[in-house]
Amino acid sequence: MVIFKKTMALAKYGFVYCKRRLKWEFRGLSNISYQVKDREGTKIDTKEIINSEVWNRRVVSGLQPTGALHVGNYFGAVRRCVRLQDQGDDLMLFIADLHAHTTPQDPGKVQENSLELTALLLASGVDPERTVLFAQSAVPRHAELCWLLACLATHARLAHLPQFKEKSANMKEVPIGLLLYPVLQAADVLVYRGTHVPVGADQVQHLQVASQLVRTFHHRFGKLFPTPRPILPDDGSDRVRSLRDPIKKMSKSDSDPKSRILLSDSDEVIKLKIRKAVTDFTPQVTFDPDTRPGVSNLVTLHCLASDKLIEEAVEEADGLTTAQYKRVVGDALCEALAPIRERARQLRARPDLLRDVLRHGAARARVRADVVYADVADRLGLTTIASEPRVHTHALRLA
Amino acid sequence: MVIFKKTMALAKYGFVYCKRRLKWEFRGLSNISYQVKDREGTKIDTKEIINSEVWNRRVVSGLQPTGALHVGNYFGAVRRCVRLQDQGDDLMLFIADLHAHTTPQDPGKVQENSLELTALLLASGVDPERTVLFAQSAVPRHAELCWLLACLATHARLAHLPQFKEKSANMKEVPIGLLLYPVLQAADVLVYRGTHVPVGADQVQHLQVASQLVRTFHHRFGKLFPTPRPILPDDGSDRVRSLRDPIKKMSKSDSDPKSRILLSDSDEVIKLKIRKAVTDFTPQVTFDPDTRPGVSNLVTLHCLASDKLIEEAVEEADGLTTAQYKRVVGDALCEALAPIRERARQLRARPDLLRDVLRHGAARARVRADVVYADVADRLGLTTIASEPRVHTHALRLA
Repeated sequence: MVIFKKTMALAKYGFVYCKRRLKWEFRGLSNISYQVKDREGTKIDTKEIINSEVWNRRVVSGLQPTGALHVGNYFGAVRRCVRLQDQGDDLMLFIADLHAHTTPQDPGKVQENSLELTALLLASGVDPERTVLFAQSAVPRHAELCWLLACLATHARLAHLPQFKEKSANMKEVPIGLLLYPVLQAADVLVYRGTHVPVGADQVQHLQVASQLVRTFHHRFGKLFPTPRPILPDDGSDRVRSLRDPIKKMSKSDSDPKSRILLSDSDEVIKLKIRKAVTDFTPQVTFDPDTRPGVSNLVTLHCLASDKLIEEAVEEADGLTTAQYKRVVGDALCEALAPIRERARQLRARPDLLRDVLRHGAARARVRADVVYADVADRLGLTTIASEPRVHTHALRLA
Repeated sequence: MVIFKKTMALAKYGFVYCKRRLKWEFRGLSNISYQVKDREGTKIDTKEIINSEVWNRRVVSGLQPTGALHVGNYFGAVRRCVRLQDQGDDLMLFIADLHAHTTPQDPGKVQENSLELTALLLASGVDPERTVLFAQSAVPRHAELCWLLACLATHARLAHLPQFKEKSANMKEVPIGLLLYPVLQAADVLVYRGTHVPVGADQVQHLQVASQLVRTFHHRFGKLFPTPRPILPDDGSDRVRSLRDPIKKMSKSDSDPKSRILLSDSDEVIKLKIRKAVTDFTPQVTFDPDTRPGVSNLVTLHCLASDKLIEEAVEEADGLTTAQYKRVVGDALCEALAPIRERARQLRARPDLLRDVLRHGAARARVRADVVYADVADRLGLTTIASEPRVHTHALRLA
């Protein structure tokens, strides 16, 4: 029954089950599957055929600098990126400070949060030599391509996206930036000719906007971009739930701080929050997100923290009550998060280093974006203009 | 009666009649009037008090590269800019190639038209040493500021602008770029801290969008911009009508080419089009746009071409039939346009020179935009990022 429900939900979003690899794969945008390095170490392809063209595989991902990260963000976004980097992917990772302004921000906080996020990313294992780590606002081509794509995007399509409806529902005045959100997302990826984007299942529709913009662009101006495809997690990292109400996703905006574990939480706080996590009255540990969301969420967290399969974790918990199991989960989380917390603390004390890392990344990102934007400008007749020799002294030195 | 109607129309848009200067002035956005050099040569103020702050007077204007210009464009936009330049104004004049893409364009044409427009502007007297003449797409800060302003602009406000309603009415799919049009216009001006924009009466509402965005920005992030104010023509140059149907404005998109005189038309063609211009059955020449739009349009063209007041032109036409007067008007237009046509022909043959002019202008514009955008980024918490030393080698050499 659980599997059937999942099947229906996934099939709705355009997934098919791949028997050979025993996992769900996304086929909504393209029929050509892609290879990822699995735990046994199969090599990834660096060249890929997309829309019958060969493109270099390049992963693009962005994170909003909107305050403290929780374990849902960490496992679902940060660690996935680190793993893509470690498997040899060409990764562009940016701090989405332009996106952050689609909702009102305390301006002082945006800058602080950007540095904080940089510290956490480095502490989590992002290697600024291998991965291009930068702030979105430092590369003007994002906003420039966003304008040009906005001229191809239709109002009706954007206004019907569930995330827009959801976010704008409670607003008295809807900023146009919120409507443009997925257009900027598309620009973020296309400006580097990104082929893959790590997302959760709820963001697939935004990627479909990008894919539609690519089609429209190609139709009007000829082929220029790969159609970016989603990389979906196979470890449940997009399913981390609130500790207080496990029906809901773990969220930064939940009014109860006990509903989430922050990366900055001390070992004591982590253990306390896990101890207080809402479960049910059945003492055994089983995994069934539909009927036992609380306990299943603990199993998920355990698996994510200790890199276990669900079956392994449930087997390990055999004979333990949920109360006893909570200690296991708490310990596993502390073990996973403590070293990151410690490294982040050290990095936070060196803001100049963090700024240098972002500067270095921005210089590299700008060179890459300029290559693609020059092609775009050429196709759109902006050539006279874009083809001029822009001297990126800084960029050339560092890139 | 005529005056009364005009009064009502103008008052609706926020104008008041200034008795001292015997002309209409705009007071919708601010109560502080500004001084312009009149025909007798009164000096303009270079410092102005706007929102109780002192700003350097700076005029910003853009023209879309959408093909051949007609005399309405020339007198209403190009020549007004040249006169502002000649009276000593600090003028930023750009080719709005980003705006052009809000309606589908033949990409090859955009580039061709940009160079053509550059040739016409230079031929009309734009001096690239005094005026900063450049292509919009060559200065990334336009699009970057546009994104940030889009996060402050409300959807409802933009969707209710008459120009949007008009343009989108016949479209099956409305591109979001069309909705954003006035936001990019606001960015165009604010990114240089422009204090004045030469507009026609029908564009005043777009400038009000800019003025509202300034208010919202100041409210959230503190004062940073002057509120840009319109400069309205006092010579009727925004009232040039179709020669075939003088109720309508002269338009590039009219299906009848005889409805407009192009800057590229030969003397023979100009005279022929004026001869075929629709008038009425009264032979006398009088000026009354409401009851005699055709003849009044000829008087307007005569005045614009020969720099005459309406009264002077009507007096000169005393005793002439409209048929005879048409010869006078045709001759006046040929005299005004022939030298421009000839200079444009010479310049068109030197595309490298035109590109160099745009490059030079872009380098200067970028330096100016960077100064303002650095302040914006600082206020919005994008500092870590934007404050890095961007070396504009090219710019520094030329600026």
